[in-house]
Amino acid sequence: MARPAAAMIVIGDEILSGRTRDANMHHLAGVLAAAGIDLREVRVVADVKQQIVVAVNALRGAYDHVFTSGGIGPTHDDITAESVAEAFGVAAGIREDALDALAAHYPNGRDDLNESRLRMARVPEGARLIKNPVSGAPGFSVENVHVMAGVPKIFNAMVAGLVPELNGGPPIMSENVRINLPEGDVAETLCGVAEAYPELSLGSYPFVTPSGFGTNMVVRGDAGDQVAAAAQALRVAFGIAQ
Amino acid sequence: MARPAAAMIVIGDEILSGRTRDANMHHLAGVLAAAGIDLREVRVVADVKQQIVVAVNALRGAYDHVFTSGGIGPTHDDITAESVAEAFGVAAGIREDALDALAAHYPNGRDDLNESRLRMARVPEGARLIKNPVSGAPGFSVENVHVMAGVPKIFNAMVAGLVPELNGGPPIMSENVRINLPEGDVAETLCGVAEAYPELSLGSYPFVTPSGFGTNMVVRGDAGDQVAAAAQALRVAFGIAQ
Repeated sequence: MARPAAAMIVIGDEILSGRTRDANMHHLAGVLAAAGIDLREVRVVADVKQQIVVAVNALRGAYDHVFTSGGIGPTHDDITAESVAEAFGVAAGIREDALDALAAHYPNGRDDLNESRLRMARVPEGARLIKNPVSGAPGFSVENVHVMAGVPKIFNAMVAGLVPELNGGPPIMSENVRINLPEGDVAETLCGVAEAYPELSLGSYPFVTPSGFGTNMVVRGDAGDQVAAAAQALRVAFGIAQ
Repeated sequence: MARPAAAMIVIGDEILSGRTRDANMHHLAGVLAAAGIDLREVRVVADVKQQIVVAVNALRGAYDHVFTSGGIGPTHDDITAESVAEAFGVAAGIREDALDALAAHYPNGRDDLNESRLRMARVPEGARLIKNPVSGAPGFSVENVHVMAGVPKIFNAMVAGLVPELNGGPPIMSENVRINLPEGDVAETLCGVAEAYPELSLGSYPFVTPSGFGTNMVVRGDAGDQVAAAAQALRVAFGIAQ
């Protein structure tokens, strides 16, 4: 029941400056959970080569997979391809198959590829291309590092093509028990159920509504029957058994 | 015009599992930009003590401020206080002023504080409290690490109290020029303007709409007049001058 471990690197000044609210992390987290791949860590870094290199090298050795988002477009601030190449100690260059993938999305093919667009066909040596059905410019994988676009529509399409090709584990089972009590009133009972099911992970997530505090109690684990039993134990304890 | 540099640590399995979409990073990024504090890096880590300790110690030496979000509630999976204490090599314990802040939010004061709730008054030795006007349970700062709640309404309230007390730099000025052209058609001009204004940061952020591709070109920098001039240069170059 081993589940591969993964990390993500979100590359982009626009996230750190508050201009844009990242959407790719949440999307990837959901896809990986369904595929049985554990997302363990995310780093958001600026469009700065050294920061990208450090993050790639810190994470690619620590996790089975690293997914990146952003910085593979045609402009001067798109530096992910050369940064990933540097992290692996290889060169980046324009490759014929990447050019073909890109050119196929323009009416006049390669004739439409100006110098800026040609940047989008640069990939590190030894990379495998990731398809981009939206705008052609491919992503790529180098060993266990998967490099994708930042535009959510393109990121999602790349993820949809890539993730099914990775070997995942069993999907993580989960159940949510929602209750209109503050976390401080459910903590002791929750802790008791957590101790009774040591193989499961029980979390509590408080919320605030106009009518008061409430808590979502989330049970997660490998075995669906155990997850169901623990969730039912919580419902019984709080008098909301179905 | 020195601007302090900051990092953030988002603590929470629920973000990494895809259950919850984080909102605190985007909120903090906007508040810090307005306060003249540069957010340079964000890490999202699981509710695992060792991960929190490693992230706190990696970032607190590298940046002027570190802000954390999540894991300071009353349940067994709320381990941020002891993790931050461990990162600093100090003990964590229940403190009278934290108890007072917490008790003030319950109808019967301290009599309402069961064992679980008492956990919310535990802070590392030497910490300064951060006010929580929503639910009482305080956040805290240890040296340059500011520890806040994960519930967005509470996180935002704590940020509102904390950030004005930090010494920021001048706010970063920015202008956005939106154009209905794909990034590959604006890259060369954008790069030329970037070279003409070496003190500014020019970024481009492509988007996809049903009617085609477009690009937001964002000019950022310290000097408002330079930012305005560069933005105008872009508008003139693309024939959309106002």
